[in-house]
Amino acid sequence: MTNLGRGTGRREDGVRRPRRKAEETRDDILAAAEILLRKKGLTAFSIANLAAELKMSPANVFKHFHSKTALADAICERHVVQMIGRFQAFDEPIAAPERLVIAVRRLMETHLADIKENPYLFEMLVVVSEADLPSGRHYKQLIENLFANLVRHGIETGVYKCTEDSAITRNVGSAFASVLHPVFLMRADEAELRERCDGLAALVNAALQNPLAK
Amino acid sequence: MTNLGRGTGRREDGVRRPRRKAEETRDDILAAAEILLRKKGLTAFSIANLAAELKMSPANVFKHFHSKTALADAICERHVVQMIGRFQAFDEPIAAPERLVIAVRRLMETHLADIKENPYLFEMLVVVSEADLPSGRHYKQLIENLFANLVRHGIETGVYKCTEDSAITRNVGSAFASVLHPVFLMRADEAELRERCDGLAALVNAALQNPLAK
Repeated sequence: MTNLGRGTGRREDGVRRPRRKAEETRDDILAAAEILLRKKGLTAFSIANLAAELKMSPANVFKHFHSKTALADAICERHVVQMIGRFQAFDEPIAAPERLVIAVRRLMETHLADIKENPYLFEMLVVVSEADLPSGRHYKQLIENLFANLVRHGIETGVYKCTEDSAITRNVGSAFASVLHPVFLMRADEAELRERCDGLAALVNAALQNPLAK
Repeated sequence: MTNLGRGTGRREDGVRRPRRKAEETRDDILAAAEILLRKKGLTAFSIANLAAELKMSPANVFKHFHSKTALADAICERHVVQMIGRFQAFDEPIAAPERLVIAVRRLMETHLADIKENPYLFEMLVVVSEADLPSGRHYKQLIENLFANLVRHGIETGVYKCTEDSAITRNVGSAFASVLHPVFLMRADEAELRERCDGLAALVNAALQNPLAK
């Protein structure tokens, strides 16, 4: 990688062009990579092809993303943040236990839709969560925040009797791993998943409505 | 595979030898395969090597097991049955909630010990559970039975207030997926797993002691 970045910022005729902000170049690379990856998947994808598509040198792409995995991680990061954003809003009259059921179900259904409609994107989610990459950890944190908000709302409205505690929130999130974790969803039967999702929500709701839960 | 089984039952000098029972041959193949697989892992393993080790023709091995995966499945089946057998016995004075904590923890620790001591065996468990093979499904069923017994004991002793129902048992099992499923255990941090295991058991115990759980 000794020629890393060589030739950038200067045209072949030797005239200096205005430097594009690194941020913009990074965004262009990401957008093109996402299109390619959604179409062809991680296995068929290469930085060389991406660079050709962008009319950039592979070295220039490499300056921004050091590997296919780093690109997949950045794409998943955007996807995950957008996805979770959609689950934060609730109509006020819904009671906490029902909110929990709805939130988990929505999240699971979003994954199931991705499996069908964007299978290569979902495959990337599996890779980043298996490899414990930043976007996978961030997704876990966002899910934990989502559950923390649901539990807090339940306690404030007097429906949940448990102690408000980050350990409870983490355990609630872990209890749903088999219906929310990409690794599990990929191979599971949809009807079974829906039944399990509602069953787990009922179990967790019973726990949270018991002052024993701490 | 046209020469399947050719040469068995008849020695090269043409003298007929007494046929060994198929069951015995199958056991020999399994025992040798387990030794090889525990030592070298599924990737390095081949039926050709196994046949050489057993001084059998590959075709004869193939008569009993049609693939590496079928062999891995049969080995995991034995392992899983032995493993679960060890979790059925309990000293009488232990109350249901504590039994649940102990059972889940023991099961998880057995997996963690396997990851360290028999990594290739554990790798096979991951493969069979990912591929939804019979031994993986059997393992799931045995776990469900284990939880059914724990829940029934809790109800009979008046500690668990939930309805006795196979759906509850399945949900309890699913709630522990992130500390009991081989796919999860492989990549997880041990200290985090132990904390999560105890946290999930506390959550499930709170649910089962609530008459709301159904």
